[in-house]
Amino acid sequence: MEKGGIIQQQQQSPGRSISRRILHIGLVCIALCLFTTRFSPTFAPVIPNHCASLSPIQATEFRSRRNALARTLVQLNASAYMAEPGTNSLFYANISSSNWGLSERPLLLIITPQHIGDDVEAKVTILTPAFEAPRAKLLPISSQDVSFVSWEEAASPYEHAVSFLDETGPIFVDGNMRNFIVDGLREARPQFTVSSAPYELKRLRERKSPAEIELLKCVNEATLLSIRAVQKKLYFGIHESTAGAMMRDTMKAAGVDGGCLTLFGENAALPHGAGTDRTLGKTDFALFDCTPRLHGYEGDVTRTIALPDSQIPSDHLKIWYDVHSAQTAAIRTARAGVVASKVDKAARASLNNSEYFTHRLGHGIGLDGHEEPYLNGGSKSVIETGHTFSDEPGIYIVGKVGVRLEDCFYIGEDGNAVYLTAGVGGQAESPWRP
Amino acid sequence: MEKGGIIQQQQQSPGRSISRRILHIGLVCIALCLFTTRFSPTFAPVIPNHCASLSPIQATEFRSRRNALARTLVQLNASAYMAEPGTNSLFYANISSSNWGLSERPLLLIITPQHIGDDVEAKVTILTPAFEAPRAKLLPISSQDVSFVSWEEAASPYEHAVSFLDETGPIFVDGNMRNFIVDGLREARPQFTVSSAPYELKRLRERKSPAEIELLKCVNEATLLSIRAVQKKLYFGIHESTAGAMMRDTMKAAGVDGGCLTLFGENAALPHGAGTDRTLGKTDFALFDCTPRLHGYEGDVTRTIALPDSQIPSDHLKIWYDVHSAQTAAIRTARAGVVASKVDKAARASLNNSEYFTHRLGHGIGLDGHEEPYLNGGSKSVIETGHTFSDEPGIYIVGKVGVRLEDCFYIGEDGNAVYLTAGVGGQAESPWRP
Repeated sequence: MEKGGIIQQQQQSPGRSISRRILHIGLVCIALCLFTTRFSPTFAPVIPNHCASLSPIQATEFRSRRNALARTLVQLNASAYMAEPGTNSLFYANISSSNWGLSERPLLLIITPQHIGDDVEAKVTILTPAFEAPRAKLLPISSQDVSFVSWEEAASPYEHAVSFLDETGPIFVDGNMRNFIVDGLREARPQFTVSSAPYELKRLRERKSPAEIELLKCVNEATLLSIRAVQKKLYFGIHESTAGAMMRDTMKAAGVDGGCLTLFGENAALPHGAGTDRTLGKTDFALFDCTPRLHGYEGDVTRTIALPDSQIPSDHLKIWYDVHSAQTAAIRTARAGVVASKVDKAARASLNNSEYFTHRLGHGIGLDGHEEPYLNGGSKSVIETGHTFSDEPGIYIVGKVGVRLEDCFYIGEDGNAVYLTAGVGGQAESPWRP
Repeated sequence: MEKGGIIQQQQQSPGRSISRRILHIGLVCIALCLFTTRFSPTFAPVIPNHCASLSPIQATEFRSRRNALARTLVQLNASAYMAEPGTNSLFYANISSSNWGLSERPLLLIITPQHIGDDVEAKVTILTPAFEAPRAKLLPISSQDVSFVSWEEAASPYEHAVSFLDETGPIFVDGNMRNFIVDGLREARPQFTVSSAPYELKRLRERKSPAEIELLKCVNEATLLSIRAVQKKLYFGIHESTAGAMMRDTMKAAGVDGGCLTLFGENAALPHGAGTDRTLGKTDFALFDCTPRLHGYEGDVTRTIALPDSQIPSDHLKIWYDVHSAQTAAIRTARAGVVASKVDKAARASLNNSEYFTHRLGHGIGLDGHEEPYLNGGSKSVIETGHTFSDEPGIYIVGKVGVRLEDCFYIGEDGNAVYLTAGVGGQAESPWRP
């Protein structure tokens, strides 16, 4: 009773009321904390930056790319190559579409060959709207010698684009150039040909340099490490959007920027997504198709995974291993000298030409996530050293299940195919060991 | 002393120590909370949703747009109109580039005229990669009668695109179509013309319907209300990025999605930004150029503002009022029947043809932020009822100051120009009353 009496007294004392107030403040803080966490970064696993030691492409490499282009222009008797900001301008001059957004006002990279003695070198000109010239001069162009040609608002940009060309040969343009610009160039110079860059020019980007291969390795490795780290944090009931955000944050920590198509269960049967935000169930695979970037170079890794307690139906598991075998069959077929279609066919044969393997086996990869040459049944391209491809067979049964496994590979100096993820183990082993 | 003794006893009681622990947890939570707030929404003013009552464009309007297109195709003896996902496919069929990202695999909207008795109606076909057909069928196409033509990975999409065309007339394509697709169509049908849509087709989008004008009014009004609300929350020392995020969040609350180019002081002298993240000083103007969207329609409002305690140099203030006068001179000149260049010239004359007014006066606006017709010194377009334009003179002295004021206007049925922001007061009054 005495003790009880003291307790009674404490409950009524001012000191006690202060501590209750402290309790209330504490509880409010905890609630606030839980509330704001909803807006804070996902509880993504933080893994070390995997690519911190890699540099972007150096100025000397940009110069040698441009000079190779200039020499090819001379061989083709062409007067110029022109591109809007995009991956071709990024390749030749370090101008990407994130440096300069496309608008109705053309900004063009123009490369012309110039003869220096017996040699041919590239000259870089930027066509810019006049009022944007100060901003154009801030572009991180990888050349010390750039001319700027500017056009006033009431003038024709196309007249300016062709005004300084000495040669009378064709103008080759990036195939991605918007048609109204091609029209404008044709009107400005009706006597000359303006056409999409032929294969001789396009192929200059296809075979990757050692520096490019290093970047492509690292962006793919960091992605695979991120998928493995996130796998450990997944749980039944998580939304696709939450898991996708977790992947993005983990990849960012790993040193690469980008997102993952994140699809659970039957949503993965649409190879590019269904637009819903499904939760993960015990019988579902989780598919992550991740496409981050490092210094402009694209990674592309897909894993279809399960959790330790997942109860994947046995027919879905069989699909996983079938797709895995097809992926192996493809890389074993790929090597220098082989026609690209043969690699696609090897994967398809491994899957008994399944009607559920609905897309091509793979694509070239570099500054574009998808670029030439392609690995499809109609591709006549011959694989060469320095080529890089995705190897990504899949099986998609709409309304039921989708499985895709993807690692990219390169063709080494010895002509053999090596996964760009090989440095961290390469191909998945099982849905539980991605 | 006795009281003191009790307090002493309370401090040592288990209940007190629990509440102190809760306080500690609470304080840690506050710290965590403050830390995560860095990543949470800005302390943006929340204003009411201004456009909640407006609906997107209705199916009947989409149908009448397509039928107008079909009738014009017949007048031009053309066989088809084709567009990649973008604002033209959005205009005719409600397919935007956010519904379907562009890739190397073409997805095309194809509109062909079909004769129904004496009438001409539009037929809608979607060319889709075969493996993407299930996803293509999820597109929010505003037509009940859509045919899908799909192409397998190893086949030519272009052969499929032209395979079902009965007519032999030219194929007109969206001027924004990428050139490799135009090339592909030409190769697939070498005997026919494939060319960019002529003026007869492009003009179908120029004159806005009443429903379009209502959307354009609301998106511009909500933007101006947001700028005014954010102005009250600005402070000296705020970063451009923080103020920009505040604007974005406030516009979102106001019912429109998008961002603002946010430039302080001399950064505003580059009309499209400098790429730094400057803080706001007492002598600086803050320029916000906001481009949000509402149901696909673009707003465009620019204000150059000051805070109550700003100490704007008098020569900068004079520039502000000069630009304001030029904006007024322009809208007073604009009306149905006037040649567009005359409006640009009126603003320029008001600024004594200043060399620091470096860009055109304005642009058409609708589904594209910048679209035809343009208000520049070379524009021969004649202004018509239903046209919508930006009126945005500016003065830019590099390294010193930039001032731009922008309100969009439409040409009403009576032929007069009315600001799209008129419902909330229209044009700014001063840097302090935007």
